[in-house]
Amino acid sequence: MVTPTGISVGIDVGGTKCLGVALNGSGEIVAQSRRPTPRGAGSLPLLIDTLAQLADELGPYDELGVGVPGLVTRDGVLRAAPNLDGVADFDVAGLLGERVGRVVHVDNDATCAAVSEWMFGAARGVDNMVLVTLGTGIGGGLVMSGQLQRGRNGFAGEYGHMVVDPDGPPCPCGRRGCWERYASGSGLARLAREAAIGRRVSRVLDLAGGDPEAVRGEMVQQAAREGDDDSLRVIDDFGRWVAVGLVSLSNALDPEMFVLGGGLAAGADLYLDPIKHWYEELIYQPELRPMPRIEFAHWNEHAGAVGAALLWAAHEVS
Amino acid sequence: MVTPTGISVGIDVGGTKCLGVALNGSGEIVAQSRRPTPRGAGSLPLLIDTLAQLADELGPYDELGVGVPGLVTRDGVLRAAPNLDGVADFDVAGLLGERVGRVVHVDNDATCAAVSEWMFGAARGVDNMVLVTLGTGIGGGLVMSGQLQRGRNGFAGEYGHMVVDPDGPPCPCGRRGCWERYASGSGLARLAREAAIGRRVSRVLDLAGGDPEAVRGEMVQQAAREGDDDSLRVIDDFGRWVAVGLVSLSNALDPEMFVLGGGLAAGADLYLDPIKHWYEELIYQPELRPMPRIEFAHWNEHAGAVGAALLWAAHEVS
Repeated sequence: MVTPTGISVGIDVGGTKCLGVALNGSGEIVAQSRRPTPRGAGSLPLLIDTLAQLADELGPYDELGVGVPGLVTRDGVLRAAPNLDGVADFDVAGLLGERVGRVVHVDNDATCAAVSEWMFGAARGVDNMVLVTLGTGIGGGLVMSGQLQRGRNGFAGEYGHMVVDPDGPPCPCGRRGCWERYASGSGLARLAREAAIGRRVSRVLDLAGGDPEAVRGEMVQQAAREGDDDSLRVIDDFGRWVAVGLVSLSNALDPEMFVLGGGLAAGADLYLDPIKHWYEELIYQPELRPMPRIEFAHWNEHAGAVGAALLWAAHEVS
Repeated sequence: MVTPTGISVGIDVGGTKCLGVALNGSGEIVAQSRRPTPRGAGSLPLLIDTLAQLADELGPYDELGVGVPGLVTRDGVLRAAPNLDGVADFDVAGLLGERVGRVVHVDNDATCAAVSEWMFGAARGVDNMVLVTLGTGIGGGLVMSGQLQRGRNGFAGEYGHMVVDPDGPPCPCGRRGCWERYASGSGLARLAREAAIGRRVSRVLDLAGGDPEAVRGEMVQQAAREGDDDSLRVIDDFGRWVAVGLVSLSNALDPEMFVLGGGLAAGADLYLDPIKHWYEELIYQPELRPMPRIEFAHWNEHAGAVGAALLWAAHEVS
């Protein structure tokens, strides 16, 4: 693993804002800036402008990386992005590279989060790690044998669409029972809503003003923190679903460590024990293997930008 | 990838026999031999004798490798093996190495099969490949970034225990709905038996002498080859279950190629089209990615032994 000698800039493109950081060789953020993500028809050239302006503002720099939400090829082309407008084979690396006059490294935002945790976060020094982002959906990244693993096309880490129940609820991807229908932020909200409809979480129903359809994940978190047993049972069920996927990933990949990132990391104190409990219940032959470390991410809001700033090094070794 | 200059010997330890091969630097079998696997209480020292005798018989050789059924640590210790007697932390690499006076490479038999396909079989030259063995259960191996991936403990590739339906039939591993309950040889038999009990496969029931409990996977294969529509529907359902797991592996690992090995490879002509059909139905965003190659293994009976003979090279680069 090579670390930067100077400053590298990373920008995380989100659906509402672009967040840029300047990172020094020790993995410290020395400057940051944000701008709204241009949206609407014809906004993609404006997005390139925005990225170039952010990079200028944060420079001078040696290396530039960008994290984007969607399927990214190994050449840095964004093939599709549900949360950006008009994206179809959008050559971020090529267009921005031409604009700034140097090589630009581009990867999926969850892959960037994996890089940030692996190089300067919770999984520093870990050669076999799986990062899972628990947000609205589920994404992730993979390090094996001390190398970032991107797969043939660059699409590795789409853990959210592993099927955990082929007769489960429909997924926007067109299938049923994808892991992210259960173990993401929207999965938690669905579990809580179903409990409210079934009159099993009266405190949560209160918080939702009596309307089970208005129940959100935050409400079950709040009630659970107040000690509400019904809500703690929903959290336990949620933890079981997270563990079901982690166990499948363990059986396939045998990592030393799982890092859990994404928006749900804010509720880490509630979920971590149920996740670990169910992991031990569900793993194949637990007595024959050490329990992997399961921890929440070190980087929160800056995970994508920091990882983007480090892509040049992560891509070099992989 | 380094190829051997002289002869390497590989031995595949099965529940009934040990099969040894001498392999030249071009991946050709130049000699082979087999002996019964010693079984019963106290047979493990006899197993070491048997392995040493096979190696002697096939030598002289430069390198020696052994494939064993079960969970194998990175140091070549067999932690558990349901199909061998009395195994608990059986140090195959250490004991055999002492006996033959050189380093012995030991790995899981499915990992050996992956190595044989990757170095001298169907996946030669492929940097990102997943081997899945469809036998009584499901095992496998993984190559990413042109390296054999063994995971932290050496246990990667236990794909059979990925959960595809948490309310599905019980698995000997203690959980429910593991992939191998559906997509293995015993999974095919179960699907066929359920169809027979439901009176949906009269030809298969004939072949089983009218007893649905006597239905085996071979019978539904035979009836399907005769053109029996009911049996072809069972095969199609089986292909769908295989595809469910392959799709999950694609979403997680994005391989260029899947190689399907194990005993069910004998029915490749029947399964391959349904598997590919369902894969395309089930994969996330098929229009955005090339279809991976899905092929049956090149090596059959010799897969494990050939891969064991190549472990020295595969372990070296990983």
